[in-house]
Amino acid sequence: MAKLGGELVGPADTEIRRMATLESAGPGDLAFVTGAKYLDQLAGTRASAVILAKEHKAATKLPRILCDDPYLYYARAAQLLAPEERPAPGVHPQAAVEPGAEVPASATVGPFCQVARGARLGERVVLGPGCVVGEDAQIGEDGRLGPSVTVYPRCVIGKRSLIHAGAVIGADGFGLAPQAGRWIKIPQTGRVVIGDDVEIGANTTIDRGALDDTVIEDGVKLDNQIQIGHNVRIGAHTAMAACAGVAGSTRIGKRCAIGGAARIMGHIEIADGVTITATTFVTKSIRSPGTYTAVLPAEPAREWAKTIANLRSLDRVSKRIRELETRSKPPARKRKR
Amino acid sequence: MAKLGGELVGPADTEIRRMATLESAGPGDLAFVTGAKYLDQLAGTRASAVILAKEHKAATKLPRILCDDPYLYYARAAQLLAPEERPAPGVHPQAAVEPGAEVPASATVGPFCQVARGARLGERVVLGPGCVVGEDAQIGEDGRLGPSVTVYPRCVIGKRSLIHAGAVIGADGFGLAPQAGRWIKIPQTGRVVIGDDVEIGANTTIDRGALDDTVIEDGVKLDNQIQIGHNVRIGAHTAMAACAGVAGSTRIGKRCAIGGAARIMGHIEIADGVTITATTFVTKSIRSPGTYTAVLPAEPAREWAKTIANLRSLDRVSKRIRELETRSKPPARKRKR
Amino acid sequence: MAKLGGELVGPADTEIRRMATLESAGPGDLAFVTGAKYLDQLAGTRASAVILAKEHKAATKLPRILCDDPYLYYARAAQLLAPEERPAPGVHPQAAVEPGAEVPASATVGPFCQVARGARLGERVVLGPGCVVGEDAQIGEDGRLGPSVTVYPRCVIGKRSLIHAGAVIGADGFGLAPQAGRWIKIPQTGRVVIGDDVEIGANTTIDRGALDDTVIEDGVKLDNQIQIGHNVRIGAHTAMAACAGVAGSTRIGKRCAIGGAARIMGHIEIADGVTITATTFVTKSIRSPGTYTAVLPAEPAREWAKTIANLRSLDRVSKRIRELETRSKPPARKRKR
Repeated sequence: MAKLGGELVGPADTEIRRMATLESAGPGDLAFVTGAKYLDQLAGTRASAVILAKEHKAATKLPRILCDDPYLYYARAAQLLAPEERPAPGVHPQAAVEPGAEVPASATVGPFCQVARGARLGERVVLGPGCVVGEDAQIGEDGRLGPSVTVYPRCVIGKRSLIHAGAVIGADGFGLAPQAGRWIKIPQTGRVVIGDDVEIGANTTIDRGALDDTVIEDGVKLDNQIQIGHNVRIGAHTAMAACAGVAGSTRIGKRCAIGGAARIMGHIEIADGVTITATTFVTKSIRSPGTYTAVLPAEPAREWAKTIANLRSLDRVSKRIRELETRSKPPARKRKR
Repeated sequence: MAKLGGELVGPADTEIRRMATLESAGPGDLAFVTGAKYLDQLAGTRASAVILAKEHKAATKLPRILCDDPYLYYARAAQLLAPEERPAPGVHPQAAVEPGAEVPASATVGPFCQVARGARLGERVVLGPGCVVGEDAQIGEDGRLGPSVTVYPRCVIGKRSLIHAGAVIGADGFGLAPQAGRWIKIPQTGRVVIGDDVEIGANTTIDRGALDDTVIEDGVKLDNQIQIGHNVRIGAHTAMAACAGVAGSTRIGKRCAIGGAARIMGHIEIADGVTITATTFVTKSIRSPGTYTAVLPAEPAREWAKTIANLRSLDRVSKRIRELETRSKPPARKRKR
Repeated sequence: MAKLGGELVGPADTEIRRMATLESAGPGDLAFVTGAKYLDQLAGTRASAVILAKEHKAATKLPRILCDDPYLYYARAAQLLAPEERPAPGVHPQAAVEPGAEVPASATVGPFCQVARGARLGERVVLGPGCVVGEDAQIGEDGRLGPSVTVYPRCVIGKRSLIHAGAVIGADGFGLAPQAGRWIKIPQTGRVVIGDDVEIGANTTIDRGALDDTVIEDGVKLDNQIQIGHNVRIGAHTAMAACAGVAGSTRIGKRCAIGGAARIMGHIEIADGVTITATTFVTKSIRSPGTYTAVLPAEPAREWAKTIANLRSLDRVSKRIRELETRSKPPARKRKR
């Protein structure tokens, strides 16, 4: 832990084997307190040590590490205590690596993967079972694909990517031209180009561009079941929670935070540093950082029925106010509004 | 049918081969009427027999089975008439069962499945083609996985589970700590633990816990494309319709009914017996059973435009009312509000 | 290009190799202008030629093709310039084609596909890697399935279908009957029947019918991550954008346009030619063509807070208006409302 910094209060030889929550921790566990509201759980914890903000130094007598940001410290400590296991390198005998694919000796290709001709895996890439890396697609070094990930032809994924099971990178965008009541398919000839240090959740889909590319910049984090339409660009270090969706050709800035199930219209632009709350639908461009929302919180059904009835009666409300204004207006002069 | 109970009215030797709807039934088919509004379809049906509520006994002259709950009777009868076919046991020669995996002789492992070291399948488990059962994961007896289901390492699935194609159990939760404009990944070291008699729909994703486990209790039914975040707990016999989503660390009670595309915020609690209507967003804890909603039903676009305009003019409405109140107030005494 | 029609203005020997956008085009590229608002990009383009509406004939001096509908022309030209590559026919040695499956010599079966007994592939069908075609399922001629598509037993897919990675056709519908606080599964014995020229997006799920079939008519286009419940019928040439969902037994008409993340309640009917805007929830049947919506656009959080507060204060507004009306009403006669 020494290399993570922080001030240790208590015996330096406290043995720590893993991270745990205050509630479930036992001997050998390191727990953490990310805010004042969790301090009262300290009394009951069986953790061997805790990570605390400096100002909470006196909140426990347990061995403790004091730091500026306990949540970040937890993240770093957890990485140390639970390092990712790398499977042994090599191509599984039940994989299908086509002639003309580049698979370095340091890479791991699981069973039932297809690596097509022209595809290129970087050093130490790991493909879980059942992945497909299409013709001329590329996965940068240290990339990891979970089971059954599909990377369509010519798509490019940067270094140290982590893509979870069932994600689909580079399927056709939804491009159709109407003709006499039918739909004519527009070939989708762009690619998906994904930067370095990107994480993509399970069953998320990112469509290839129609002509130009769909671009996911460095450090973007996408949760599960997200849909990214063709020709979208997502700026560096933006994070998007599960079930969000972005329609075609929209550009999202850097370091945005998009809440779960938020929806973003096509062909608009979102500035850097914008927060969109969960379930909100963004219908037009947002030019300034800040938080944007349109959330209707659930209510007991009876109260909601009243709200809806009131909303629908607003036309009548306006009319009644006009009537009142007419009746009550001073007779001598004309009022304007 | 005798073992299902119910009162048979008509010849006991009516031959029934399968269930059908009133509209599409033909000779040999058993149809059913689940409510009074369907009674007038009885006249036209070609079914050989029908399941009816006792009070509708006289609604037809067809051979009929009278019972308290025709829908439940239909479910039971359909199970009798269309029993699930079990594929022959055995490991397909094109599967990859690693040394150290436990696969009983009664289990069926389809082609292109990977069963990793330490994984344990119960008796009579059926894995469809392309499934992945990760290291040390467990599937309880009589569990059935459809094609391309992924169970990540160490996750536990109870007895008699039914998991449909493309579901992903135990991918990493979305755990990130911000540091200087970038995201630091928090290792997700908990599991997904699923009880007995759980059904999980196609392409549904259930994330593993960050430290503690994500828990799905006995008898829970999840439809397709549902997203369950890390450390969520879903109480026994709760049913959730398609495209619903539950954010991290939320606890949902027993016997809840969550409508399609409903969204539930993270870190809250929902009591037992709560109904959430389709598309509703629950933003805070719900402590009492009942129905909760926040649904805006579609309207013709012109009417909706008026509703939105009215909603936006509410500020002015309040102002105008205040003005009117000022003008009309009795001059003698001060009013308070 | 000659066979696509249009009027060529400029040298007939302009060499065109591919389509491109005005912005990214270079020598050898054909670009297009779909509306007046893009005309000012013409000045800067490096395209060798452009597709233009007739009325914009004079907007550039570049070689140009004049036509009635540049977007449709683009679609057709793109098809000519980027014809789909067909992989070589044949069954991959690592596929599993069961005895009793029909696979014509012109079909392509990728590695790790399972084609079960009784399944029938039409002429020139292409299965990407990892597809599953269940017992007695059928794929019509010239159908193409991307990687890891699942077609459950007995489902039928028409001619020239295009199904993208991870789509699941024919998993069980969500059919449950309650009994004493538990759920009894209703066997789902219907099929999914899909017409000709249908496109289905990545990770979309279409459930099989409970008794009768789920039906997708000819020419329907479904984007990614769409969920179609059991016994739904979608009329010919209807298009549905990503993340839309349709609950069980609903019938949608022909040539409808359903926006992204729109939700449609079960057991209702939508007429032909209806447009539903993105994110809108349709709760009851729609009998006339037109546009239907219930969209709440995102606002800066502070403004939204005011909107919500106003909405919640509507009860008080009505009360205050009633008070004002009482006070201001002419004393001589009784008013009615």
